[in-house]
Amino acid sequence: MKLALIGTGLLGGSTAAAWRRAGAASAVAGYDVDPSQSRRGVELGVLDRAAASVADAVRGADCVVLAVPVGQMAPVLAEVAGVLTDSALVTDVGSTKADVIAAARRALGRGFRRFVPAHPIAGGELPGIEHADPQLFAGRNVITTPADDTDLKALQRIESAWTACGARVERMTANEHDRVFAAVSHLPHLLAFALVAQVASQPDGARRLELAGTGFRDFTRIAASSPALWRDIALANRAALGTELRTYRGWLERLQTALDTADGPSLSRVFEPASRTRRALVLRPDGEPSGGE
Amino acid sequence: MKLALIGTGLLGGSTAAAWRRAGAASAVAGYDVDPSQSRRGVELGVLDRAAASVADAVRGADCVVLAVPVGQMAPVLAEVAGVLTDSALVTDVGSTKADVIAAARRALGRGFRRFVPAHPIAGGELPGIEHADPQLFAGRNVITTPADDTDLKALQRIESAWTACGARVERMTANEHDRVFAAVSHLPHLLAFALVAQVASQPDGARRLELAGTGFRDFTRIAASSPALWRDIALANRAALGTELRTYRGWLERLQTALDTADGPSLSRVFEPASRTRRALVLRPDGEPSGGE
Repeated sequence: MKLALIGTGLLGGSTAAAWRRAGAASAVAGYDVDPSQSRRGVELGVLDRAAASVADAVRGADCVVLAVPVGQMAPVLAEVAGVLTDSALVTDVGSTKADVIAAARRALGRGFRRFVPAHPIAGGELPGIEHADPQLFAGRNVITTPADDTDLKALQRIESAWTACGARVERMTANEHDRVFAAVSHLPHLLAFALVAQVASQPDGARRLELAGTGFRDFTRIAASSPALWRDIALANRAALGTELRTYRGWLERLQTALDTADGPSLSRVFEPASRTRRALVLRPDGEPSGGE
Repeated sequence: MKLALIGTGLLGGSTAAAWRRAGAASAVAGYDVDPSQSRRGVELGVLDRAAASVADAVRGADCVVLAVPVGQMAPVLAEVAGVLTDSALVTDVGSTKADVIAAARRALGRGFRRFVPAHPIAGGELPGIEHADPQLFAGRNVITTPADDTDLKALQRIESAWTACGARVERMTANEHDRVFAAVSHLPHLLAFALVAQVASQPDGARRLELAGTGFRDFTRIAASSPALWRDIALANRAALGTELRTYRGWLERLQTALDTADGPSLSRVFEPASRTRRALVLRPDGEPSGGE
């Protein structure tokens, strides 16, 4: 397939590199609001061509991959719709799905049937196409969330491309996706941001950070993520995330009461199942960062 | 110094190994409630002798190192007091300090002057003396929290032993220590336990955990810690931890309101300083786990 890649950051660049290596993409035209990113992509051989605009990238493409922040999906989809051919597929790699699907339905009209919503659960520590990695998706999950009227052939072609990259493809509804990732991704990001903000806002915050051990560093690593990206994700998925956060605040209220009343058994009733569950996760194949204090 | 090591787990074993390599300990007698641990320590050459009781280990020692969970310090100190010579030092490696100091003062009487409260900020992913590592403390912080009446010579001898192991020694008051580590260690542990407990308690919890990416795994790694150990730490430091938790719940309440009202700028006011602060930490020398989603 001739690919149009809109957004040539780490995730978009890795998608292009992985699909190309897997034989799922022949040529790749890339567009980015930061032209130095797409030019660098050409230098690195990840892209064949740095496009001058969304329209320039999409013209003649068999498949458009949207790898822009979820907050940018709606305007980008509107631009894509203007030049899309009748047979071209559109897919995305966004972290939220119901809002992207709604934006695609509004923008693409009849073409919405060939839009395949997808979310590869992968990332890297360093941003930019500079660090694009064709192996980024090997052994990782890619979630697809087709709508009732999504074209089955389109869905299968996108899923095959991901499978060819070594990913495990899992289908679910957009709402289930958004609930699951509110719990295991969006909420942890929000909690990590809040903890670092709290420590940093204290008068002796710098000293506290200096004294922090590896446990703090692991716990807060995700707080180094892009604040604009995560503001958009939080807003896009605010219903599901709001529900998870409310539940979590209930757990913290119970722990507060247990601390205030020196109630060890109540602490244990939270800590024990958590520790058991988390230890069981260690045995999974994709490695585990080390450290402790 | 002839060492008596009470508690021969990972941290105690590593202390013995590190002090011995640094020339700070000559012979080490170790006692553990689990005799297989101290016997294994002898086999590994970390200990010279597996003692049959606390008293048996302490008899003839120049320095007693307490490496038991903070919840066990008081009864162990009472046993130590019964057989301690007039010149022997006592120190500990516990994660909380004000409560351990109070227990030492009660148990040791006149001998309290030679008790040096210490907390090495180090740990490893795998428990037990099997994984003891003489290099565990190299480049790490060790906090000492002397009381007003702590003997200066005793303090200096313990601090020298840690410095000889390559650690950076930092002195502060016990209350400052407990406040700082409530913020950067105890609260994160409590938050990680609560998040894993929440995910695990949901009807589709197992599926959610299966779909979670590396961000979740990093964030929750500390939830694999010993629930009994952390219940004791939380109880021992419940005043400072309670204060930090209350402040944190205030941050979460603000984020909940921001989500409920789709207030992007309020989210950014938390996410932006947090991301800036956390990115600055990445540059520190002791490495950084990778991953992302």
